[in-house]
Amino acid sequence: MKKKQIDTLVLFITILGASTSVTAQPMRGPLVVSPQVNPDNTVIFRFLAPDAKEVKLSAQFENKLVPMTKDSTGIWSVTVGPVQPDMYPYHFIVDGIRVTDPHNTVIFPNENFQNSIVEITGDTPLIHTVLNVPHGTLSYRYYFSPELYIRPVVIYTPPGYEKNTDKKYPVLYLLHGSTDTEETWTKVGRANIILDNLIHQDKAVPMIIVMPYGRAYPVISKSSGSLRSWDNLQEFKKDFLNNLLPFIEENYRVKTDHNNRAIAGFSGGGGESLYLGLNNPDLFRWVCGFAPGMQREEFDRNNAVAFENPALTNQRLKMFWIGVGKDDGLYSVISDYLKVLDQKQINHETFITEGGHTWMNCKLFLTIVAQKLFKKA
Amino acid sequence: MKKKQIDTLVLFITILGASTSVTAQPMRGPLVVSPQVNPDNTVIFRFLAPDAKEVKLSAQFENKLVPMTKDSTGIWSVTVGPVQPDMYPYHFIVDGIRVTDPHNTVIFPNENFQNSIVEITGDTPLIHTVLNVPHGTLSYRYYFSPELYIRPVVIYTPPGYEKNTDKKYPVLYLLHGSTDTEETWTKVGRANIILDNLIHQDKAVPMIIVMPYGRAYPVISKSSGSLRSWDNLQEFKKDFLNNLLPFIEENYRVKTDHNNRAIAGFSGGGGESLYLGLNNPDLFRWVCGFAPGMQREEFDRNNAVAFENPALTNQRLKMFWIGVGKDDGLYSVISDYLKVLDQKQINHETFITEGGHTWMNCKLFLTIVAQKLFKKA
Repeated sequence: MKKKQIDTLVLFITILGASTSVTAQPMRGPLVVSPQVNPDNTVIFRFLAPDAKEVKLSAQFENKLVPMTKDSTGIWSVTVGPVQPDMYPYHFIVDGIRVTDPHNTVIFPNENFQNSIVEITGDTPLIHTVLNVPHGTLSYRYYFSPELYIRPVVIYTPPGYEKNTDKKYPVLYLLHGSTDTEETWTKVGRANIILDNLIHQDKAVPMIIVMPYGRAYPVISKSSGSLRSWDNLQEFKKDFLNNLLPFIEENYRVKTDHNNRAIAGFSGGGGESLYLGLNNPDLFRWVCGFAPGMQREEFDRNNAVAFENPALTNQRLKMFWIGVGKDDGLYSVISDYLKVLDQKQINHETFITEGGHTWMNCKLFLTIVAQKLFKKA
Repeated sequence: MKKKQIDTLVLFITILGASTSVTAQPMRGPLVVSPQVNPDNTVIFRFLAPDAKEVKLSAQFENKLVPMTKDSTGIWSVTVGPVQPDMYPYHFIVDGIRVTDPHNTVIFPNENFQNSIVEITGDTPLIHTVLNVPHGTLSYRYYFSPELYIRPVVIYTPPGYEKNTDKKYPVLYLLHGSTDTEETWTKVGRANIILDNLIHQDKAVPMIIVMPYGRAYPVISKSSGSLRSWDNLQEFKKDFLNNLLPFIEENYRVKTDHNNRAIAGFSGGGGESLYLGLNNPDLFRWVCGFAPGMQREEFDRNNAVAFENPALTNQRLKMFWIGVGKDDGLYSVISDYLKVLDQKQINHETFITEGGHTWMNCKLFLTIVAQKLFKKA
């Protein structure tokens, strides 16, 4: 059974339900169902705006904005696709104003923009499809930092963690992109579901995944650019080493040796993961960058420890993995970085794929990496 | 230290950060900080819309829409307050279109509308303020239903739960309003933080709180009205008794006797909590309604077991608690319900307060009730 949108197309609410929020906004007029994913992988998007002059759809499966048309009830709609099954960010542009889909509760957690998320499942479950398999637990926790006060972190523990009280697990620290939050890797990246499915298929080692908030707020403001900025790297490193790592090792049954500790990140968080991973060889033996944020003039500074002694780096790291899409704006600088790694004879695996700087690719990178992690003694 | 908005007012991004999402939307133009909560409890709201003709603020601390004015950079803004410290839903109305605040990641989880949330902390911490006290864990889990497939549930375990492995806890089932989701009680209602603070102050018994998704989707569509509709009550009851309760009792260290099991709910979820609580006296000894959704013609049917034998009901229930605000649209029907309870001599506690059908009141109701629960043998 697939969990598809099976709601009635449009239901006219003629009587206000007694429990409608009376001080907020009553459910008056036509109630809109959006998005409606059809069995043939076409999708109908709808938006109620009787007085708008122009409504367009912006979706990451389309190369351009898609015009929507209005019906007699004031609902704008468009049918698109069939769409390649995946999860995609989208929003509406209503008379030039960007708006999320008000009837879709799946929202991309981000400090700089808002998108809704549509999931096209298709006939065959994907690796991020929520299935009836054993599920791990996603825990929302707080830890304390003397400089940054109370810090949020989301932690995935694999199926069976609560009951196997004698078992210890390897741990992956997984960092989000620059304006994302600690929720983006699960709400958009489905890291927990990907691991549930890979573990169920015996393709990944059961592991704990730690997803902290990657910006050293309030020391580093929310509007101060990429997570891989030098100032953020310094503050985040301090928080990571002094507060986050001890909190995890005190409160979770993680293996605490470097062979069982990995770090990975996307975009600005990929810049953080390379910086922390390559400069702290006693902590991490597995280092991954998913379209990692970087600049050419920062190569030497940010990779100082690894570049200083490539032979020792190769001896230490069990895996150094970089993935990027060919249409990613970072493809060029990452390609140059890979050349530098070659010149310095630093071992690394690369995965070059189609597509851009998207969470669709991000899920793919995690899926590949999760099948490799902690599999070398 | 209070976690106030200390970002720079407006930062002009002149160079695109390398890690900006290139296929989504670059951070061009002025970066907007909103909301900005000032030390005197005034709040500045900002929204970038150079081409809009009219932007207004809709906030639950204001009785009417507040006009905003545009500056030369295209940013609309308004300063309001001082505002009574609390957390409030708000949104912008941009040329008639409702829009959440794109730079605020705290969004009201709801299937029918979207609001952003602003928190005015004030000088004195409130009971829902995130403080440096021991924090419980919020766990996102799934359980399986043969009829409803994979069901989400959010579970609060109190500080120390993971380490006190011999201890069992009483359990409160806490239900959201009609178009809310399993996340609304924590993201908007701060149920976890309220309990952290009450437990830290030794005012509440450490308890587990179970917050399921209250709509029997997909059997009951997302657009089919209140949770307390008869059809939803029947399906939700089945899921609750057959799937949710066994899942919790198998996976959490809860006390499994009726003296240690409570149920409460807001609005449509209050209708669910009264229906489940009053008709299953062998399950629950503590029953609470927070502005519970109800209709006069349903009183007899929905309260059948309790109305049939008031003396036995009084003997069974340790607490039957109803709270409502005088400005709530449900105040009239709930008042009539309380009269019926009086006529039938069914013991109950009431809490009548100012204000309407809001989550501000909802937090207050939980704060009061949490200090009473599980305190009678």
